[in-house]
Order: sequence, then structure tokens, then C-alpha cells
Amino acid sequence: MRTLTSTDPNFEQQLTDLLAFETVNDKELLATVDDIIHQVRHGGDAAVLALTQKFDAHPATSMQQLVLTPDALKQAFDQLDEPIKAALKTAAERIKDFHQRQVQPSWDYTDALGNRLGQKVTPLDRVGIYVPGGLASYPSSVLMNAVPAKVAGVAEVIMVVPAPKGELNPLVLAAAYLSGVDKVFTIGGAQAVAALAYGTDSIAQVDKITGPGNKYVAAAKRAVFGQVGIDMIAGPSEVLVYAEGEAADNADWLAMDLLSQAEHDTVAQAIFVTTSEQQLNEVATAIDNALEQLPKADIAREALQNRGALILVKDRAEGLALINRIAPEHLELSLDKPDDVLADIRHAGAIFMGRHTPEAIGDYCAGPNHVLPTSGTARFSSPLGVYDFQKKSSIIYCSAEGSKPLAQIADTLAMQEDLEAHARSARYRS
Amino acid sequence: MRTLTSTDPNFEQQLTDLLAFETVNDKELLATVDDIIHQVRHGGDAAVLALTQKFDAHPATSMQQLVLTPDALKQAFDQLDEPIKAALKTAAERIKDFHQRQVQPSWDYTDALGNRLGQKVTPLDRVGIYVPGGLASYPSSVLMNAVPAKVAGVAEVIMVVPAPKGELNPLVLAAAYLSGVDKVFTIGGAQAVAALAYGTDSIAQVDKITGPGNKYVAAAKRAVFGQVGIDMIAGPSEVLVYAEGEAADNADWLAMDLLSQAEHDTVAQAIFVTTSEQQLNEVATAIDNALEQLPKADIAREALQNRGALILVKDRAEGLALINRIAPEHLELSLDKPDDVLADIRHAGAIFMGRHTPEAIGDYCAGPNHVLPTSGTARFSSPLGVYDFQKKSSIIYCSAEGSKPLAQIADTLAMQEDLEAHARSARYRS
Repeated sequence: MRTLTSTDPNFEQQLTDLLAFETVNDKELLATVDDIIHQVRHGGDAAVLALTQKFDAHPATSMQQLVLTPDALKQAFDQLDEPIKAALKTAAERIKDFHQRQVQPSWDYTDALGNRLGQKVTPLDRVGIYVPGGLASYPSSVLMNAVPAKVAGVAEVIMVVPAPKGELNPLVLAAAYLSGVDKVFTIGGAQAVAALAYGTDSIAQVDKITGPGNKYVAAAKRAVFGQVGIDMIAGPSEVLVYAEGEAADNADWLAMDLLSQAEHDTVAQAIFVTTSEQQLNEVATAIDNALEQLPKADIAREALQNRGALILVKDRAEGLALINRIAPEHLELSLDKPDDVLADIRHAGAIFMGRHTPEAIGDYCAGPNHVLPTSGTARFSSPLGVYDFQKKSSIIYCSAEGSKPLAQIADTLAMQEDLEAHARSARYRS
Repeated sequence: MRTLTSTDPNFEQQLTDLLAFETVNDKELLATVDDIIHQVRHGGDAAVLALTQKFDAHPATSMQQLVLTPDALKQAFDQLDEPIKAALKTAAERIKDFHQRQVQPSWDYTDALGNRLGQKVTPLDRVGIYVPGGLASYPSSVLMNAVPAKVAGVAEVIMVVPAPKGELNPLVLAAAYLSGVDKVFTIGGAQAVAALAYGTDSIAQVDKITGPGNKYVAAAKRAVFGQVGIDMIAGPSEVLVYAEGEAADNADWLAMDLLSQAEHDTVAQAIFVTTSEQQLNEVATAIDNALEQLPKADIAREALQNRGALILVKDRAEGLALINRIAPEHLELSLDKPDDVLADIRHAGAIFMGRHTPEAIGDYCAGPNHVLPTSGTARFSSPLGVYDFQKKSSIIYCSAEGSKPLAQIADTLAMQEDLEAHARSARYRS
């Protein structure tokens, strides 16, 4: 695992290299995805079925076999062990409670001229949620996507989840049951994205597609963006843990927090930033020790090797500047008084404050969403939220008198823009 | 201009054909845009200059000549005639007043366990605003993009506007002055988008790019999405005017409202929907008459021919269903009591209520944004707003006691997901 020091003359370049990660954009991938989308748009259900048989080695011989009934979801939940059921239920409730606070109301006001202006907030009609299958098939992902959609008031939430060789994770289905998913198709890849975006006989066209996926899914989402809304193009997951070598820090805790990111996959990024050289060394040792007990040590080791770093900074100001430069998906502040720095943090997907808030708690059950902007996109994007499943319409209602002064302004400006029909249309109301 | 009747057996197909409009996605265009982006990423300022000389026939021989000073903007404003100055100023103030109501505050709360949860709202650091040059160079576009960014608290707003042959619309510069734009580059096309997304020596990299443009601009925005945020891929502008043949309707007004959309360009869409056949005929006649007095009659005529329609529906229920199906960018409700139908309108970018609210007033000065979702994307997207220039970070702050039950849940669920480092990281806090 590399160690960087902010005083190193090459630090800037080392940092740039560390953070470099571009969304795969190779032409072959794009051509494959374009072709799949074309097949689904024109072949409908038959194309979806054929592609699912091909890519997922799925034994289905008809589209009906790729639909799960509400009963199947409920059954999956009912059959869980009690402690797991309870954990999943509490997580769902907490996520719901947090997201209810994000619901935006419609509003309006009357201006001094007597005109009514406002914003009407409406839930989307129908959304599609992509849930990865296989290795990364996480019930928590289902909750984090479906609960906000339902809280927003989306009438129909359709989930797609690939079932390689027909196999499904029952927890994923249980989570779908708990979050009120309306329909589940066991399909995945670019073909699932295309089916949701354009619709087929069996799969109703949705208004927006959210949820993570592999590079084919990401490329397909980018391609259908505009036809439907999408949440974001997710990159590999990252954490930045920041500490200042305070007495209450525990190197084992910090190490495990970094490893909980690194175990995700070999391109996940775990970065430790500290003002204390001694602490940097302690955490490095703690990581080595912890790796010896982890089932996913190989993945974590490769991730740390590829994209991990321990970074020594001079002081807090430098640390904060680095955090804002990186704009991490997850930021842990292992500080006695994390509130002291909160105002200075401009860019982070989620901020985990203090020593008792590991990322893992946020991943599952704290309440806020775990779908977060990656690869520095926290500079301009937000956690997935209820606001992603609501949209706004402007309301303008001029009174007969109140329209007059506005019509005159519109007339004047429209004439300047050489738009005479605009000007005349306004003039009728002046 | 075509007339459709909802009872026609072919109505569904006619409607589908009417609404069909796909974002240009041809391979040649994409390859050109990719190449331009590549040139700018690797050639920086020199590439931007060369491309601007080539595509805009701009006489500049250095990047400095493509930068406008704040003085130049102020001068452009100062030199305007008083009535125009006043109109622009009132428009800017009204837009500012409306958008201030969209500012979202940060919030947090403490849960029953003593954990603090919340959402921190932060403005973007730096945004780029694309303003088309030439024909569609509108000062109102500058206000509608820059004012919300400044209201959101964006520290640096950079505007790009191409200056074909070096020519610029002084009103565009005046509007930039009024809205507090920080810097203006007279560049455009895919090269401007690439420069904003990746930065050059002269042009600082931005976090988000908003604003309309031609197909090269649209394709470039799609290509850089992820590297930076973008607002939307704008299609041609549209209006749907709905009426029910009430006594107070004026066919000349309705016709001019439709024409104010049609005069924009030859692919703009103006649709009139009514429950009254007599009114449909009156509006058709009024359009013909009005066309004779319009400077842009040729453009409007072609737009109406290509994409316009007069649609007769049976009743209000059918009219409302049609509106929601079309999800128009602009919706005018020429009704005595437009509030009676408001709750049933699910999808529209902006809703113009009653007879004294023509779209033109909203285009310039009502207050709400005129950058609106087109081509049916009002199903899932919103008018441009302050929320596009702010983003959120989740805050999670567990107390030593409050973390324990959450850590146990995270532990349980992480073990189910085979993520043992997650489980251990949580367990340390349980």
C-alpha cells in the first residue's frame, strides 16, 4: 500500500495518478451495448429472453418465467431467520424515516402584482431499479433504491435483477418485499436497461432507471439517458478516513474501516489521511494484521495495492483541502470534535462523524442513502434521495391586471430577440 | 397544419408520429464530437483557439482575445436604451425573487437513539453556462441560467458564448453583467463544452455545465456527463395550448401563443388541444391570418407543417390524459378555472394558467425558469433551478451508545452479504 507525503515534490502528480479512474468508454463495449439496445427495442420480449438465456445462462424458455410474483417476494421474506428479518426490517424503517424528511412540498405565492407563482411537486409515475446479481447482489441496495421511490409516491416500482443460471439471493427478494417493490423481472445487463427504457410487451416503459451495475449496465444507462432519467454513472466505491492522531483513535478500528471499503472489489479505493506520522504507521500495521483474518483478504489486498493510499499531511488545513480536492464518496472524520471541520467540508457524498460512525453503519441502516456520488462527482451530485423520484412543474398564473406590466417587459425583450410572435402574444395581455 | 381527432381509428399512430423526435445520435456526429473533445483535452488552449478560428471564423489570434473583461460586460449594459435596461433589470429581479424560494437549507435531527442524521446543502464551486451564439443568442437564456447559479451561491459562474466572425449580441453581455457572471469566453460548440469539462490553462475546469446548444453541444454534453454534471439534453421547444371553447377564449390570442413557439425554429412543436370543433376551426383560421403579419412566418409555417397539430378531443378527461401522455415543455390552460384541472396534470415543464398568462411572459420575466424539460422528459425532470446548482452530503453522527444497536444490525446484514470487514468494522462499535 503506497504512502504519500504532502511535502513530497511529486505529491501533486502522485495524487493525480491515485485518483485517476475513468469510466470505461471503449468503443467495443459501446458497440456491444448499442447492439443490445437495438435488439431489445426492435425485438422486445423475444430479444430480452434470448439475451438473458445467452448472457445469464438462464434456463427460462418464456418471459413469464422471468417474472416474480408478489407471493414469491413475501415467501422469501417469511422464510428468513428471525434476527435477519428483524435487522432488515429495522433498516428499512430507518431508511424510510430519514427519507420522509426529504419529501418536497409544492408551494406558491402571490407577487405584488397579484400574479400567482409556484412550483408543483409530483412523483414519477413508474421507475426501474437495477439490482446487480451474483457477487454484488445486496439486499441493502434494494432498500436504498426502492424505499426513497416509494416514499416519493412513485406508483409503480419495477425491479430488475439478473439471476445467473436462474439463481437468486432470497434476501434481495425479501428486501424487495419490505420496500414495496411492485414487480420483479429476473433480467439484467444492458438488455434489462433497454427493456425498462423502451418497454416491451411484458415490461412497461419506466420514467427513470436507478441503481448500480457493471460496465455494460453503466454504458446502457448513459445511452438511454434522455429517453428516461437515470441516477448517475457509478464508479468504484471509495472511502477517505481522516484522523489527527488523537488519543481516542484506535488503529484497529481505522484499519477495519478502510478494509470494509477495500473488500468490495479490486478497484475500490480506501485512503487514509492523517496529520500524524506515527498514526500512519500504526494504521499500516493494523491493516496488515487485519488482512490475515479476512475472508476477502485477496480482494482487499489487491484494492489497497491498486488504489489505496496512506497520506501524511502537515496540518488540518491541508487535510481539509485534500478532502475537498478528492470529494470522496464516503468521508469518515475520526475526530474528537468533527463539528469543528464540518463547515469546511464542501464535497463528500456522506460524512461519517466521530469514532462511532463507521461507513458500515451507513451502508446498511443509519437511514441516509448508501447510493452516493463516486469518482469526485460529489463536486456536483448528491446522494440518491426522494428528490430523484419527484419532479417539479412551474406554475404561473397571471391575473388580468397583474399580467400587464409583465406583458410589457416580455414585449420589449422579445422585440430585442427578434421574436415578434412572442411580442404580440404578450402585447395582447398588456 | 394537421388536424387530428381523438375518435379517429388511427389517432394513436398519428399521435406517436407527431411526437416522434429523437435526439440526433448519428455516428458521424458522435465521432466528430469525440474528436473535438480529444483535441481539447490534449491540446488545451491552442486546440480551443484553432477550433474557434475554424468553426466560428473568429479572427482571434490568442486565447486572451477570447476572454471578455467585466468592464466589457458593464459597458454593454450601460450602453443599452433605458426601456431595455429597465426591462432586463426587472426580469432579472423577478427571476431572482422566484429562485430564492428554491434555496434548500441544510437540516438535521437526532433520532431516538441519540444519533444525529441530516443533509448538508452546499453550492457547487464553479459552473459553466453555455449560451448559443448567432440566431438563438438570447439574453433571457443568460438570466435563466446564471441567476439561479448565483442564488444558489456558486462562487464562480463562467459563461461561454460563440461569436461567429467575432460578433456578439450586446444584450447577451448586458444580461451576463446583470446576473453576476464572473467570466465570459467567446467560444462555443463541442470545443467550449470540452474546455469547461476538462479545463485548459486559461479556462478553469467547472463542476457542471448548463444551457442549451445545437446538436454538437448536446452530444458533447452527453459525452462529458460524469466528468462534470450537466443539466439536460434539450430537444426542440414545444407548447401545448389547451382550451374548451369557453366564451372568454380569443382565437387570435391562442393562435399567437402557438405561433410564438413555432417561430423559434422549424422543428419547434405547437399543439392545440380543444374539446370544441368550432374553436379548432377558429384557431386554424386565426393562425393563417396571423402568419401574414409575422417576420418569421416562413420558420413558423414550416414548424407547424412539420410538427404542429390541432387536436380535437371528446372531453376534458381525454384532454387531460393527452396532456399527461405528451408531458409538454410548456402547457397553457386557457380556461376560466384552470385550478380545477391542476391536480390532474402530472407532467409538464411549466403550466401557464388562465388567459392572461401566455408562454412569452414565462419566457422572459414571470420569474420561474424558462429552461424546461422537452420531448416528454417532464415525465422525470424539472425546470432548471437553484437545486441544480446545490448538492447534498449526508451527515451521520452516531453517539457512543446510539451506535450500538445500529452496529449490530449492520453486523448481521453484512455477514449475510459476505462482507466480513464491514461486519467487523461495525462490531467494534457494538
